Amino acid sequence: MPYLDHIQFPEDLRRLPREALGHVAKELRSELIAIGAEIGGHFAGSLGTVELSIALHYLFDTPRDRVVWDVGHQAYAHKALTGRRAGLRRIKRADGPSGFLRRSESVYDTFGAGHAGTSVSAALGMAAGVQRLGGDARVVAVIGDGGATAGMAFEALNHAGELGCNVRVVYNDNGMSIAPSVGGLSRTGRAREYFEALGLIYHGPVDGHDLAVLLPALEALRDATGPTVLHVCTRKGHGFAPAEADPYGWHATKPFDVATGARASGTSAGPPSWTECFADALIRIADRDARVVAITAAMPDGTGLDRFGARHPDRMYDVGIAEQHAVTFAAGLATEGVRPVCAIYSTFLQRAFDQIVHDVALQNLPVVFALDRAGLVGADGPTHHGALDLAYLRMIPNLVVAAPRDENELQHLLATALEFEGPFAIRFPRGEARGVALDPDPKPVPIGQGTLLRDGRDVALVGVGKSVVEIERAADALQQRGVSAAVLDARFVKPLDAALLERAARQCGLLVTVEDHAVRGGFGSAVRELLGERVPDCRIANLGLDDRFIEHGDVADQWRSAGIDTESIVRCVLDGIDAKLVQEPVRLKPRRAARLFSSSGSP
Amino acid sequence: MPYLDHIQFPEDLRRLPREALGHVAKELRSELIAIGAEIGGHFAGSLGTVELSIALHYLFDTPRDRVVWDVGHQAYAHKALTGRRAGLRRIKRADGPSGFLRRSESVYDTFGAGHAGTSVSAALGMAAGVQRLGGDARVVAVIGDGGATAGMAFEALNHAGELGCNVRVVYNDNGMSIAPSVGGLSRTGRAREYFEALGLIYHGPVDGHDLAVLLPALEALRDATGPTVLHVCTRKGHGFAPAEADPYGWHATKPFDVATGARASGTSAGPPSWTECFADALIRIADRDARVVAITAAMPDGTGLDRFGARHPDRMYDVGIAEQHAVTFAAGLATEGVRPVCAIYSTFLQRAFDQIVHDVALQNLPVVFALDRAGLVGADGPTHHGALDLAYLRMIPNLVVAAPRDENELQHLLATALEFEGPFAIRFPRGEARGVALDPDPKPVPIGQGTLLRDGRDVALVGVGKSVVEIERAADALQQRGVSAAVLDARFVKPLDAALLERAARQCGLLVTVEDHAVRGGFGSAVRELLGERVPDCRIANLGLDDRFIEHGDVADQWRSAGIDTESIVRCVLDGIDAKLVQEPVRLKPRRAARLFSSSGSP
Repeated sequence: MPYLDHIQFPEDLRRLPREALGHVAKELRSELIAIGAEIGGHFAGSLGTVELSIALHYLFDTPRDRVVWDVGHQAYAHKALTGRRAGLRRIKRADGPSGFLRRSESVYDTFGAGHAGTSVSAALGMAAGVQRLGGDARVVAVIGDGGATAGMAFEALNHAGELGCNVRVVYNDNGMSIAPSVGGLSRTGRAREYFEALGLIYHGPVDGHDLAVLLPALEALRDATGPTVLHVCTRKGHGFAPAEADPYGWHATKPFDVATGARASGTSAGPPSWTECFADALIRIADRDARVVAITAAMPDGTGLDRFGARHPDRMYDVGIAEQHAVTFAAGLATEGVRPVCAIYSTFLQRAFDQIVHDVALQNLPVVFALDRAGLVGADGPTHHGALDLAYLRMIPNLVVAAPRDENELQHLLATALEFEGPFAIRFPRGEARGVALDPDPKPVPIGQGTLLRDGRDVALVGVGKSVVEIERAADALQQRGVSAAVLDARFVKPLDAALLERAARQCGLLVTVEDHAVRGGFGSAVRELLGERVPDCRIANLGLDDRFIEHGDVADQWRSAGIDTESIVRCVLDGIDAKLVQEPVRLKPRRAARLFSSSGSP
Repeated sequence: MPYLDHIQFPEDLRRLPREALGHVAKELRSELIAIGAEIGGHFAGSLGTVELSIALHYLFDTPRDRVVWDVGHQAYAHKALTGRRAGLRRIKRADGPSGFLRRSESVYDTFGAGHAGTSVSAALGMAAGVQRLGGDARVVAVIGDGGATAGMAFEALNHAGELGCNVRVVYNDNGMSIAPSVGGLSRTGRAREYFEALGLIYHGPVDGHDLAVLLPALEALRDATGPTVLHVCTRKGHGFAPAEADPYGWHATKPFDVATGARASGTSAGPPSWTECFADALIRIADRDARVVAITAAMPDGTGLDRFGARHPDRMYDVGIAEQHAVTFAAGLATEGVRPVCAIYSTFLQRAFDQIVHDVALQNLPVVFALDRAGLVGADGPTHHGALDLAYLRMIPNLVVAAPRDENELQHLLATALEFEGPFAIRFPRGEARGVALDPDPKPVPIGQGTLLRDGRDVALVGVGKSVVEIERAADALQQRGVSAAVLDARFVKPLDAALLERAARQCGLLVTVEDHAVRGGFGSAVRELLGERVPDCRIANLGLDDRFIEHGDVADQWRSAGIDTESIVRCVLDGIDAKLVQEPVRLKPRRAARLFSSSGSP
């Protein structure tokens, strides 16, 4: 790579003559394709921004001038040009850079970006800050037409039109979110009218792959005064024919052969993903209940709703990156007797917290929330963990909150939710489900009923969702050490199965909750609230995520690091039993001897 | 009222000839003015929608056709025409109708509306639902130009432009939110370009007070196909000269004299409001620290920032009804070394939950959140209570959460927040502060340090913010009954003062937390998490709001109904002591005898 090998930072780039930039683009694109072929991952987005990344760093005095990228899928070229070229082969691994922008990772990452639509707000704040403090740094946001469907992007543009300070926006229009862009603006193509109506100065559109027009256009943007937009048209997957032909399918990819575009086989020997199981269950229920519709916020693939949409095209709504609207739109549907399922990742549903409270729960409308990617998500890291949902949902009146331990439970909980005459949230994790057999029909279960999975005397292990696997393993390990552990699947975080938990607490005297969620305000906290009043003598330990954000890496490592893996549970139990022996020697003995649960637990 | 007296429901209205509607408008406007003069309250908004309300109910077959109002300040005429005319004199009182739209109140209130910007989403959902179920009901949303600054309104319009179903939007353009509208769209006035760019069919503008043009325009809207907007221009306060001259000042009013417009005196003998104290404290700190700026989401009056803006006009940002952008804009400012204070009501900050997590806390940026109207707000009711904030904030890593017990503490906590190098939230209630003397200078206090306000032996009462007043009163009442209660102001909900709480728990053996907040996941839950592990023998009771939404009415009644008033606390303590005597007779005696707290508590 005769050019790229000499570029470590943008200052190296800026020493080159303009004529060289085309060569740099060529090399950088080859490099991105080679890396994609080798390791897979988010691919097509960054191929579309190679020239744009080069031109921005060439013309703006980064990092003194601030470039604010919107989400990170388009920023791999930017990472390569800002000291992280070598790291790209380890991207999203614990020992590599984040898949997104991160202030803590590089001074060139001026603003963290994992959720879409934030860049104009952040850039406007920076521009106002620069103005306030008398600086002269330039600020430019790069937002896609997909990201611009987010309401907060509109809010920021509208404020920019009012505030009038020197904020620059590159509107990177490739007609795509992850999937093809939706929304009236995308259909009409009237970007000029839109931006000008909001009070911004509009230039463009220009071809974002033609440096001969892109460079002067960006120069004009650089030297502009007032809130200014440059409309740049790019092609997702540009320069790699298979990705150009199918940018949606190549948004993210498995490793592939560069020459042929043949990708590593998609079929795994393992169980289906939770997402697939959810989609299949939803299809089965929708097949028999014509009231059921599904809503995605620009993630038809990630949520499995593309499968649902293929089956029921008139019953699937992609609203764009618009979680707030998705939820209130669902509430509107529910008032008419339709049964909407909002399938939104746990982390993205945070965007619609107020709508869940104000538009759904307060009116007790039967909207189902299917929160995929709950808990720790691995490679996508802290912007994408779904580790706050139980806390932000369980205090909302009227709302039922549940989490299945396996895909069979998932289909039954989904059937339960769609029969329930009020709002209902179901969370499930990223990755493979457990591979259990499915009952022939998804059937409602009693609301608030947990399950005693295993009888035990010394300690009650209580999990919900994915943590049930871990407590089962912990119970096995404890048995090896002569400790008899009961295993409870709470199944519902709200309402809790008070009778089941109370019986376990009263009889074991020691109870440990485990969750892949913030320990503050989470599931364990709910159990503690319940039992603290009812069985105050029971010792309780809550295992969950401590008060910190957890870095990207391997999911199993994240569980270990968070102290919610099998070994941590075992250690916690043994410590708890030791403590009980010290504190309550007289009481522990007879309890150890008794058989505390009848063999007929809850079903 | 020769016309109005014969109109109880829209069907009565629809029996009148068109020529009569002007008379109805005249009478209805007089009635609204008379009611406003008598009881005060939200006033100018509904004067602007008298003709619109009449015309909509005249031309649409309500409630079969669905009219979806955006927020309720503009809907009093609608309420009068739909069976609630008599109730308007008791509006927002416990025995009267809500100040907002409520499905549970009337079949004509098709969708609850306390937070702005929701109507298009809800209406689009209804329209899609009607289409899906094969109905032919018409759906029309009425959204103000203020409400349309909310990102979710854009999301909904953009989706409407894509979906193409028959949703109708009345864009009620009066140039105002509560305060004058902000935003580029409001400045350029290019509403046609905006709506058309999003794929909607645009008609207008028409004069919303001239029935001769309004009626045919609404008829055309009624009979339109596809997503259609009618731009209607109205005047907030129309028909009452003082309100027309100052619609901002007359948004809400005290009782007034109809003839002169003279209003009941605004000076109260009581202490200043929390809002005023906050604004004054912020001004004092900003006077000495040029880095400090303030942000409001279209509530300069409600948040007290109009005072701040008068003093520092270049350091105050009104971003419109755009809480999401407000928070990320603040994050952008913070990256530049500016110290932004987001002053947003607790209930409205729910809109920006994701931005607090993703854009502020994850990057550990020093943004201060000032949550006014925390807790129970009285007359505004369930859409406006700030009863979830501690739960949705305290699980967020990096964030400090505090609540002052009086206005002197408020100024010190604000100073603390603005010195702290990370995100910091302060909540305070609606209404009068406590009237305490202010120290000359707002000074930082140690993060996480609570205060022992009163020594006690038998029970530790722990409050935070406003509930501290209540536990002080409860301690007085308990003393009358021979019970010695310690009184602790936690001051910080996160981090908690572990040492202080642990000492109190260990020594009293009985601890009661009190909060004007959901008991699930709230302050008491946090205390329980802490002490459950550290002082498991201590009996804990958590008083807070149960799992239901609390109706509008008097704040003191709401506290009683929620069981967090003095009497409820006393009862809880006496029950707790009884229970302790039963369960642990040997342990209680010696503890009662001891003096458990040294007189030197934390400062």
